[in-house]
Amino acid sequence: MNHPSRPVSASYTETTHLVLPNDTNTLDNLFGGRLLQWLDINCAISAHRHCKRVVVTVAVNHVGFDRPIKLGDFVTIKSHVSRAFGTSMEVWSDVWVEDQQTGEKIPANSAIYTFVAVDNAGRPVKVPEAVPGTEEEQKRFDGALRRRQLRLILSGKMKPGEATELKALFD
Amino acid sequence: MNHPSRPVSASYTETTHLVLPNDTNTLDNLFGGRLLQWLDINCAISAHRHCKRVVVTVAVNHVGFDRPIKLGDFVTIKSHVSRAFGTSMEVWSDVWVEDQQTGEKIPANSAIYTFVAVDNAGRPVKVPEAVPGTEEEQKRFDGALRRRQLRLILSGKMKPGEATELKALFD
Amino acid sequence: MNHPSRPVSASYTETTHLVLPNDTNTLDNLFGGRLLQWLDINCAISAHRHCKRVVVTVAVNHVGFDRPIKLGDFVTIKSHVSRAFGTSMEVWSDVWVEDQQTGEKIPANSAIYTFVAVDNAGRPVKVPEAVPGTEEEQKRFDGALRRRQLRLILSGKMKPGEATELKALFD
Amino acid sequence: MNHPSRPVSASYTETTHLVLPNDTNTLDNLFGGRLLQWLDINCAISAHRHCKRVVVTVAVNHVGFDRPIKLGDFVTIKSHVSRAFGTSMEVWSDVWVEDQQTGEKIPANSAIYTFVAVDNAGRPVKVPEAVPGTEEEQKRFDGALRRRQLRLILSGKMKPGEATELKALFD
Amino acid sequence: MNHPSRPVSASYTETTHLVLPNDTNTLDNLFGGRLLQWLDINCAISAHRHCKRVVVTVAVNHVGFDRPIKLGDFVTIKSHVSRAFGTSMEVWSDVWVEDQQTGEKIPANSAIYTFVAVDNAGRPVKVPEAVPGTEEEQKRFDGALRRRQLRLILSGKMKPGEATELKALFD
Amino acid sequence: MNHPSRPVSASYTETTHLVLPNDTNTLDNLFGGRLLQWLDINCAISAHRHCKRVVVTVAVNHVGFDRPIKLGDFVTIKSHVSRAFGTSMEVWSDVWVEDQQTGEKIPANSAIYTFVAVDNAGRPVKVPEAVPGTEEEQKRFDGALRRRQLRLILSGKMKPGEATELKALFD
Repeated sequence: MNHPSRPVSASYTETTHLVLPNDTNTLDNLFGGRLLQWLDINCAISAHRHCKRVVVTVAVNHVGFDRPIKLGDFVTIKSHVSRAFGTSMEVWSDVWVEDQQTGEKIPANSAIYTFVAVDNAGRPVKVPEAVPGTEEEQKRFDGALRRRQLRLILSGKMKPGEATELKALFD
Repeated sequence: MNHPSRPVSASYTETTHLVLPNDTNTLDNLFGGRLLQWLDINCAISAHRHCKRVVVTVAVNHVGFDRPIKLGDFVTIKSHVSRAFGTSMEVWSDVWVEDQQTGEKIPANSAIYTFVAVDNAGRPVKVPEAVPGTEEEQKRFDGALRRRQLRLILSGKMKPGEATELKALFD
Repeated sequence: MNHPSRPVSASYTETTHLVLPNDTNTLDNLFGGRLLQWLDINCAISAHRHCKRVVVTVAVNHVGFDRPIKLGDFVTIKSHVSRAFGTSMEVWSDVWVEDQQTGEKIPANSAIYTFVAVDNAGRPVKVPEAVPGTEEEQKRFDGALRRRQLRLILSGKMKPGEATELKALFD
Repeated sequence: MNHPSRPVSASYTETTHLVLPNDTNTLDNLFGGRLLQWLDINCAISAHRHCKRVVVTVAVNHVGFDRPIKLGDFVTIKSHVSRAFGTSMEVWSDVWVEDQQTGEKIPANSAIYTFVAVDNAGRPVKVPEAVPGTEEEQKRFDGALRRRQLRLILSGKMKPGEATELKALFD
Repeated sequence: MNHPSRPVSASYTETTHLVLPNDTNTLDNLFGGRLLQWLDINCAISAHRHCKRVVVTVAVNHVGFDRPIKLGDFVTIKSHVSRAFGTSMEVWSDVWVEDQQTGEKIPANSAIYTFVAVDNAGRPVKVPEAVPGTEEEQKRFDGALRRRQLRLILSGKMKPGEATELKALFD
Repeated sequence: MNHPSRPVSASYTETTHLVLPNDTNTLDNLFGGRLLQWLDINCAISAHRHCKRVVVTVAVNHVGFDRPIKLGDFVTIKSHVSRAFGTSMEVWSDVWVEDQQTGEKIPANSAIYTFVAVDNAGRPVKVPEAVPGTEEEQKRFDGALRRRQLRLILSGKMKPGEATELKALFD
């Protein structure tokens, strides 16, 4: 079986949650751990939609909590595969909170997870290339290699000298 | 009020969880989102123990899932503040799975979160310095500035040229 | 304040869930009560998006479970306000299960709930008219009055003789 | 195996829940979706008690939320099979809230669900007739055929002209 | 306000639960901690029904797990106040599992909890006497004083020499 | 296989929980049933660490709730096997609440559970002796036989006349 490429847009996954008391911390804000759980599921669905395989979380690369989310807020998460690397996929999520008077969606968070596709025995399997369509998708695709090198350096699996893409950032 | 330093060891927080069916994904492994939630709570307690303030999650810097955790496993999480930066704290967690025959604790994951201390109005407040004691604590303290620069670059709040600590990595 | 009409399309709300062990019954299928809970939240967000008010569930008019949903399935729920009646709104949800090989979305359920908008004291308040756009939206709009009469007869709040719309069905 | 009839009273199932913060919406009332989940379980037990088979939810025919239920309230649900139709059973639930000073039980909701009995392969199997005893049970038994015709018309499985029982309502 | 006595039967509280995957341990049996939670709520409702006051758990005196409860089982819990002591109440629960073929209820557990009634400031308040009706209720009423002395000795609040009722057991 | 003794200290298990809204009762205190669930898991891990076998809860011998635990509190549970009796183990837990200003740990509860070790067929199997080290461990070891006799008398499995250890208490 060859591994034809698939457009990034084929992996788009959107969810809207309502923040209930069950989801809050002692400040009546959305509890960080609950958002991380929602993000993990949303990203996993995107990764599956890209490769049609069982996928497992390999890493959380970055999640930024830019503004508190309140009890009663609507939280929309939209995820997509930004780039594939052999058997792994970088998945990017954007999070918005909805203004309850105007309906305007206000950016609240963004998150980057990495998933790997596995076969029934749990061994990594190749996934299709992800082909960016929009300018935004292209920009995230371009940055993904640099972020991958960062992740490998952070987890001790790559030496800084080998991270050519990253090195160029500082030249 | 001045902000006296506190030893890293004062923030150590340990938890052991049993993986129940309620915590698993469709492979009968610990669901990634559940572990991220457990880590968030454990790190938050460490951050609070360091600064005795309400703390909120600002970022997940890195979580690596190095080996699957099975239904029925005991999962031990141990967190500590690795370094303070004015109003924010980097918190480091190590995760072990326990061999159920020998009792040996096998490293399974590590995670780095960032928290900020806030007052009653939700405004950031200064926290004490974190003073490393052991060699391991010193190493994590030293790396924290580099990781902080990475995080600020990734979220567009710092330019690569200003990241002197990080730049040195590639010289 | 007058109550300008709003297009049905402004209330569209979509969510995709992954069925985890936590959501199943003893047959390893999605537990009916869990789907009813997901539907209630999705419909409530649609109702709020239509009227920008606090909304409360007044009735479940009909939910049909046409095919079992399995552990590991992706479940997509898409809701919209189909018609407004003074202070109440009929909200319609469609549920699909995604074929994990082809990605095809297979219809699995549909559901009709009724919500009412309330002010801070919990008193019903008027909501905008819902204006159908597509042919499908028009058809659901047209059927809503008939379903409303059915609901009022079933709960003893209307006499069959007054249900002119419904009566016509049998002529 | 023949299918002897069973009295309605043999399927009575009663549960009392305490509304905890975990069960509330942002108004500190019982969250509608949670009540729907409790009802689904209670009805399923009644259906099983009637037929001693695995049962699955086929439809929610009607749930009316007549008064809000508050945090801290005791909620009593009492269900029974009201009528059997070959392989399916209509199950009726009454919901009361208890006045915490006088102990008086105040009617708050009623609900009608439909279940079907299945064998190990998931195929529908015949269930015993349900024989009403009290006047109230007889009244619900009599109305069940009419409600069944309504449900089949609503889901497009019966033509209005065939619904003789229902048609008589409007003569 | 005086504190008139109330019959034990006025506090009877019955609940039937279905054991879902969410409630099980790694042996597919009902997880002990989940049953303890169900018992706590059921006993609290009985205690409230007796005294019409806010009640808080003071002690679990004894819970015996006599036989495993399986995934899919129906679990019926029936609680009642067995005796009142000034501001505290002993509450007794019996637990049955239902044979899914015959419907027979098989005793599986029994439990004894102690609750205290409190006013709005959290101070203990007097509760009515509990008056046993049946022979079984009388037997539990009689044993309650002995169990109370045991509990006070175990928690270091009474000296063995003062436990006259208990001492008589060994004469 | 022989059953070598193991030190009590080898079974120590510590967990720290943060009380979230999800864990509270209507007084904004930790819900008793939730604490019982946390205790059950913590004790089960201690019992497993002692015997390296699957363990099941046999009894809750005593749990005392000495002071309310508030929303937002840190709750530390520390468990250990206090004594083994053939196939069963008494497990003791201490519970502390942490003063959020000083970090001081204030005793809040203690609990005694009994577990039994089972093989794959669910049959009880022998466990190692538990050897106390500290003075505190010795004291709990000494009291365990007395508590065991109490439990057996309470559940009707031993006659008071046979409880020699307990009888001595009153001489």
